[in-house]
Amino acid sequence: MSGLEGVVAAETKLSMVDGERGELIIAGFPVAELALNATFEETAHLLWYGTLEADSFRNDLVARRALAPETLDLLAAAARKRAEPMDALRMAAGTLAGTSDDDAARNLLAAFPTIVAAYWRLLGGRPPIAPRADLGHAANYLYMLSGEVPPAARVRGLETYLNTVVDHGLNASTFTARVIASTGSDFVSAVTGAVGALKGPLHGGAPGPALDMVFEIGDLSRAEQVLRRKIEAGERLMGFGHRVYKVRDPRADVLAVAAETMFEPGDALYPLARGVEAVALRLLEEYKPGRRLQTNVEFYTALLLHGLGLEVPLFTPTFAVSRAAGWIAHCFEQRRAGRLIRPQSVYIGPRGRTWPISTSSRA
Amino acid sequence: MSGLEGVVAAETKLSMVDGERGELIIAGFPVAELALNATFEETAHLLWYGTLEADSFRNDLVARRALAPETLDLLAAAARKRAEPMDALRMAAGTLAGTSDDDAARNLLAAFPTIVAAYWRLLGGRPPIAPRADLGHAANYLYMLSGEVPPAARVRGLETYLNTVVDHGLNASTFTARVIASTGSDFVSAVTGAVGALKGPLHGGAPGPALDMVFEIGDLSRAEQVLRRKIEAGERLMGFGHRVYKVRDPRADVLAVAAETMFEPGDALYPLARGVEAVALRLLEEYKPGRRLQTNVEFYTALLLHGLGLEVPLFTPTFAVSRAAGWIAHCFEQRRAGRLIRPQSVYIGPRGRTWPISTSSRA
Repeated sequence: MSGLEGVVAAETKLSMVDGERGELIIAGFPVAELALNATFEETAHLLWYGTLEADSFRNDLVARRALAPETLDLLAAAARKRAEPMDALRMAAGTLAGTSDDDAARNLLAAFPTIVAAYWRLLGGRPPIAPRADLGHAANYLYMLSGEVPPAARVRGLETYLNTVVDHGLNASTFTARVIASTGSDFVSAVTGAVGALKGPLHGGAPGPALDMVFEIGDLSRAEQVLRRKIEAGERLMGFGHRVYKVRDPRADVLAVAAETMFEPGDALYPLARGVEAVALRLLEEYKPGRRLQTNVEFYTALLLHGLGLEVPLFTPTFAVSRAAGWIAHCFEQRRAGRLIRPQSVYIGPRGRTWPISTSSRA
Repeated sequence: MSGLEGVVAAETKLSMVDGERGELIIAGFPVAELALNATFEETAHLLWYGTLEADSFRNDLVARRALAPETLDLLAAAARKRAEPMDALRMAAGTLAGTSDDDAARNLLAAFPTIVAAYWRLLGGRPPIAPRADLGHAANYLYMLSGEVPPAARVRGLETYLNTVVDHGLNASTFTARVIASTGSDFVSAVTGAVGALKGPLHGGAPGPALDMVFEIGDLSRAEQVLRRKIEAGERLMGFGHRVYKVRDPRADVLAVAAETMFEPGDALYPLARGVEAVALRLLEEYKPGRRLQTNVEFYTALLLHGLGLEVPLFTPTFAVSRAAGWIAHCFEQRRAGRLIRPQSVYIGPRGRTWPISTSSRA
């Protein structure tokens, strides 16, 4: 059965993924050009409205960060049941609203960091921290997680990450958002659906397992032995290879550089991870010559987010904090296209049954 | 831009829509055969598991009907904000969970009527009515709305409706559920996304406007004048024509018969509606000869649900109470297919921008 591979379901001005050439354009910029320079608010504004804007958009988002009491109550109830952070994000996102598409878009973007941070603290038995109006989107997210105002270098590291993964063609969660928006439904419905799709293990983009592998290896002297065993057992090495990119994922270099700056000089994890990477690439070429398997974005994302002090369960929700801006940009674009996305199914079942089917099948 | 018309995105054993022949098969049965005979629980079991089963499945669902306190609190908060019933359904559906696909499926199906009925009562300033374990799925829904145990004929009328609209090929909400499930995400995420898609005005299936038109006409003597004015003004006559069916929608006859039995002999609405229908069909043939525009399922759905005592804002949520079983059946089917649905986009935006774009665009 088809997974719609190669079928074109949308025209977009938001991002272009060239897997053969290892190229990613976001809002007209090569990914590195945008990721290293823009604030996250600037990136969102570029994607949504096509223009650069800083202060008024940022200030408008600040006023929309706080959560309604019923949303906080729902998160507290979810934490008591130990719901997964992505389930909690989907639940809380679904309680948001807006008086127009643009109003809903801004409420969603502004509230995502607050939801993720509040839930993370509730899961840990700590009270949520209220957002701070004097901090930007990225800085305030780190502040709400830890209660400490982050230094500028960390904010830049997070902002680089958020810009890098904000949009990536018609991935499954973005496609979900567009299908829902194509019915004329509201952006809260579309983004809530997209969060649900991002949760799925086949979606891709989950950086946790790459770091888990590095932790499992623990010491560089064990890397070759562990990795050989994994490859010979037919396991996939997490953090290497990508469904679309046949050459190096263009996001990897941007994040590798950003990740490096997050680690203190004496930190052992960063050199260990880079050492594991070198061994993995050598062994992949040995066992799977010509497959051109490269380090992917998940590997460096894991390093970067770890360097920022985020624990593994926060990795996918933090991805969603970024991708929400991309989903919403696609909702705006789909709204302008104004066309229902509605493919066909092929029937392969029985016909002409009469009631009841038979006595035996009813037993 | 394509809306994926004619593109096959799934194989299914659940339903077959033949728009040219006016045929609809559900779970192997012609729609009328299934709709008039099965309980709704039997229909759901047929779609999910392929076999007929009555008591144990029904009893299992009974035990899952009640809502968690935080879900009820969320509905109460939504009612204070006068949220649309479909938004409230999406919010509450998103708070459900399950320990497995099957567990989530049953929790979703069982809770949908409770959510819709509780929210409807909260919107009207009345306390929700707890579900009754001695009533079937359809009967209990009517009971939770009104507080009265419905007579068997009304239950049969609702059950006929629920069976008739339970599945209909790869409509946009069903497709949404399959895309989300295709990532390996959970069924709560998939069904929550589908509710969000069903909300959209382009989705189709909203029966309210057909009844509003009959109310607007009010007296059969005015029908020809009002309808001529609408057609000449280029308005679409609500309740006539369908995107897929080129001949009479096979669901229309089933629902027309069921609707007729819901009305008391002295009720004026039913003969008025049928009279309006006759005038509309005559005028459509006069103004749009050869277009074969027929009364569609929304027209008779509106009559039937009105006859069951449901107000117009409950029509789409009641549709969702039925279609939830279809969405879940497609989730099971997509899970077995085990393949990510992931089409492509085509990039039509700029390239090679450098930062900042220009001083003027940054102003």
